[in-house]
Amino acid sequence: MPVRVVGFDGDDTLWHSESHFEVTQGEFRDLIHRHVPDADADARLAEMEMKNLGVYGYGVKSFTLSMLETAIELTGGRIPATDLEVILGWGKRMLMEPAELLPGVEATLRELARRYDMLLITKGDLFDQEGKLARSGLGDLFLGVEILSEKNTASYRGVFARRGIQPGGFVMIGNSLRSDIAPVVELGARAVHIPYHVTWHHEQLAEDAIPSSGWRRAGDITELPRILDEL
Amino acid sequence: MPVRVVGFDGDDTLWHSESHFEVTQGEFRDLIHRHVPDADADARLAEMEMKNLGVYGYGVKSFTLSMLETAIELTGGRIPATDLEVILGWGKRMLMEPAELLPGVEATLRELARRYDMLLITKGDLFDQEGKLARSGLGDLFLGVEILSEKNTASYRGVFARRGIQPGGFVMIGNSLRSDIAPVVELGARAVHIPYHVTWHHEQLAEDAIPSSGWRRAGDITELPRILDEL
Repeated sequence: MPVRVVGFDGDDTLWHSESHFEVTQGEFRDLIHRHVPDADADARLAEMEMKNLGVYGYGVKSFTLSMLETAIELTGGRIPATDLEVILGWGKRMLMEPAELLPGVEATLRELARRYDMLLITKGDLFDQEGKLARSGLGDLFLGVEILSEKNTASYRGVFARRGIQPGGFVMIGNSLRSDIAPVVELGARAVHIPYHVTWHHEQLAEDAIPSSGWRRAGDITELPRILDEL
Repeated sequence: MPVRVVGFDGDDTLWHSESHFEVTQGEFRDLIHRHVPDADADARLAEMEMKNLGVYGYGVKSFTLSMLETAIELTGGRIPATDLEVILGWGKRMLMEPAELLPGVEATLRELARRYDMLLITKGDLFDQEGKLARSGLGDLFLGVEILSEKNTASYRGVFARRGIQPGGFVMIGNSLRSDIAPVVELGARAVHIPYHVTWHHEQLAEDAIPSSGWRRAGDITELPRILDEL
């Protein structure tokens, strides 16, 4: 079945995201070490994020709240409020950052938009993701935008139903095997994995949970037109 | 044109929301007064929420971040981190609260679902709103859910386009003149206003900005079946 609709993940597929989290996390580590030199700030923050995921969901605001809670916990409540104010500022900075497109994204999307219906399918915070898309300048290239609170077979099935998409004619493009590749392939659609140089621990997937076929890997987004031609 | 599709706001139309914010805000006021007895905590928090709206958007996580920032600012950075931890706890409590349905909601919705296609059209935080709907037990009554980052003519026009809705056959039900009534009436659809006993300052609308016709007011949700019959 020919490819009709191409879905794109946003964070770390079209624009940098995880690298911004890593920068902030480095600052967080330094801040914590000024109070508790031997604290494993990264591990504790990761644990806190996972513990809070069911209450907060994904996104920068959730990350900010988890940083604050981790900082208070790791310092036994001794961290001054002015340092917590600095953490609040990091969150705002991340939310206001311009969408920094990955190399080749704009030209490739403009080319593909002439041949396929394109959807942006992201997860995370609605307000933040809409803002990033608006600031990216790419909004007009997408026929629609789906912002999901979680990317799994149920939520992709919902997208297909809402938009009348046949899985056989759909290809998903993204950097996360867990969120962009595995659930889509399970539904009988195809996928192209474009790895990003860093992967959030939560998005990592055990080798045996990765579908053995139904998807391809690209080195970067500029290979997409050729790969989609071959599908 | 007969009514075919009925859209429902969620917060303060189907379930209590603002009253939960008010409870937390009372606790916030008391906490601040222990540090700064003469502070106008409510006014400063309202200002902070408005200042942050463009960065954070709506929702409990945004409210929590604004409470933290206000507390730090009003105490000149002297508030102990353990008090800020208490504020973080209030945010989590609000996010985990069960959806407390308003009187008559469940029976009325079950009756209307037999006659109309029903949509839930809310704004705010995607993750939080999906959670509330799931906990409400009403999910199955709705043909679809639209969670918007802002409710205005552009976003309602988007809903109509995505779902092939004719404005003439659509009625929106909600407690906010600004978000549920005015934009919908402007697009040529109809609306029923069901006031809630408290209205967030941001949702208040000047008398002269309220459409003079195209909408009705109901005392509570149980009047809806009769009102929709008469439309």
